[in-house]
Amino acid sequence: MTIPERLTVAHVHELRVRFCETDQMGVAHHGSYVPWIEEARTEWMRAKGRTYRSMEESGLSLAVTRLGVRYLVSARYDDLIRIETRLVSIRMASLDFEYELHRVEDESGGSDRCVLVAQANTRLALIGQDGRPRRLPEDLFERVDVAGPVSGMELREDTA
Amino acid sequence: MTIPERLTVAHVHELRVRFCETDQMGVAHHGSYVPWIEEARTEWMRAKGRTYRSMEESGLSLAVTRLGVRYLVSARYDDLIRIETRLVSIRMASLDFEYELHRVEDESGGSDRCVLVAQANTRLALIGQDGRPRRLPEDLFERVDVAGPVSGMELREDTA
Amino acid sequence: MTIPERLTVAHVHELRVRFCETDQMGVAHHGSYVPWIEEARTEWMRAKGRTYRSMEESGLSLAVTRLGVRYLVSARYDDLIRIETRLVSIRMASLDFEYELHRVEDESGGSDRCVLVAQANTRLALIGQDGRPRRLPEDLFERVDVAGPVSGMELREDTA
Amino acid sequence: MTIPERLTVAHVHELRVRFCETDQMGVAHHGSYVPWIEEARTEWMRAKGRTYRSMEESGLSLAVTRLGVRYLVSARYDDLIRIETRLVSIRMASLDFEYELHRVEDESGGSDRCVLVAQANTRLALIGQDGRPRRLPEDLFERVDVAGPVSGMELREDTA
Repeated sequence: MTIPERLTVAHVHELRVRFCETDQMGVAHHGSYVPWIEEARTEWMRAKGRTYRSMEESGLSLAVTRLGVRYLVSARYDDLIRIETRLVSIRMASLDFEYELHRVEDESGGSDRCVLVAQANTRLALIGQDGRPRRLPEDLFERVDVAGPVSGMELREDTA
Repeated sequence: MTIPERLTVAHVHELRVRFCETDQMGVAHHGSYVPWIEEARTEWMRAKGRTYRSMEESGLSLAVTRLGVRYLVSARYDDLIRIETRLVSIRMASLDFEYELHRVEDESGGSDRCVLVAQANTRLALIGQDGRPRRLPEDLFERVDVAGPVSGMELREDTA
Repeated sequence: MTIPERLTVAHVHELRVRFCETDQMGVAHHGSYVPWIEEARTEWMRAKGRTYRSMEESGLSLAVTRLGVRYLVSARYDDLIRIETRLVSIRMASLDFEYELHRVEDESGGSDRCVLVAQANTRLALIGQDGRPRRLPEDLFERVDVAGPVSGMELREDTA
Repeated sequence: MTIPERLTVAHVHELRVRFCETDQMGVAHHGSYVPWIEEARTEWMRAKGRTYRSMEESGLSLAVTRLGVRYLVSARYDDLIRIETRLVSIRMASLDFEYELHRVEDESGGSDRCVLVAQANTRLALIGQDGRPRRLPEDLFERVDVAGPVSGMELREDTA
């Protein structure tokens, strides 16, 4: 299935490493990254016009069936993490996302230097309330929830 | 409501501190204790004859409405934590539990020396599938799930 | 110890309920609130002029020794939670904080209606790198980290 | 590096799905599996003769640099999960592990039927206290901590 261009544009979400997300090595625990990319995906969907909340309320869920993470550099407590989320592939009954996680080095300055800390990917299968796979509807990400222009930042592929 | 004596006897459950449950102070994060006492309560119920799983499947839930924890001594990664769970009060629509969390100092030895690391209490309200409070049924903890004698350890009050 | 007026003014922090923070009852798990109030406290400190990160880097930690939470109304996935954090007492070697957690009902509208979902309190003890209690220094929350005016919202007591 | 036969034998660890590990889909959240396989690896090391705790105390850490999970079947609250952990490769400065997670269907019966719920793999790099990679010492998993025979179950490859 070809992906509408509107959906392939990377979405950017930022969050801070919580204290409880560190471990005794003094860095963010590798398991903490999983909720981060899930939060980033929630914001990707909000920006693309349909909240995941409304999707679940309509009886459809996206279940993670594959997860991959490469950890490159440690993230630390209170670091500002910038996550770029991209939809990279749409299949019959599943979606593939890729994520790049950066640490924002200079929060106040204009330079906005970033360090890539991790890369991740997930496959999500659409399932109904019976827990069985569903074919992706054509209009899954039509802008049903959000009337006006959304506030989320979007990156152009060529500048990302 | 008077509590059947069978229910007031403390139940003992043991678990190990997970690596992901530590934080950068090098000790178990204070938030980690909440899942521990929840796990201990799950085992209390199993030992008393009704699994919480079967209760949820029958449409009844126990929602935590109050939580209190006092942290006395740090727990560390891989520590063996022994939790004593007691039902201390039954009210119209809620149950009060108390917990004592000990660190087992000498795991292999017969001496079995323990250090009290935390005390906790919770109030749980019975709610139905509509999310509204329910009156506690008389037979809530009749031994419906478990046919024979259970394997959980039980402490006599006087030796606890 | 009397508390400088600057410190008693409530600080407001907002966050969204993560999907992973829900449980099979369909609401935010009661344990999820603990990281939320910790995150709120991190932002309270940033707003008051000293990041907790810099405090830890200087060898001082604030260890939670008491935690209390009253759960009033359920919070759900994707709810916007507004947390008001107040320093209510300073003792020789510890600080007491209180928190009010509200669910923002109408995110877009100007009305900004909120529902109180939970109240919480924590006691934090100052400890050194040896894990032993330390007396609170007079200048603990002097504005050492933040040069200019901070971006955090602050509530006046009388309007809170 | 060839792996001593003693280390390649799969180790089996069991745990129960915690209530807090479920999400509003009614199943174990995909992020919950990460702590499970970490706990399984801790027990693998204990069974092989060196606790990870003692390794960290000696200044060496194993940092996860790659994580992969395939989710096949849902796990639910209170399910008994059996994890088989295998060391599959030793490199200059890292170790590769593979995991199979099964749900034990009939806990009491002798039949012991299992359903494969997920497969996972991790790469772990040895790092020193400076956070830099270290070459794996020859005797990394010599039985330094555990004097006598260990209590962990071990599976023969051909029966696994």
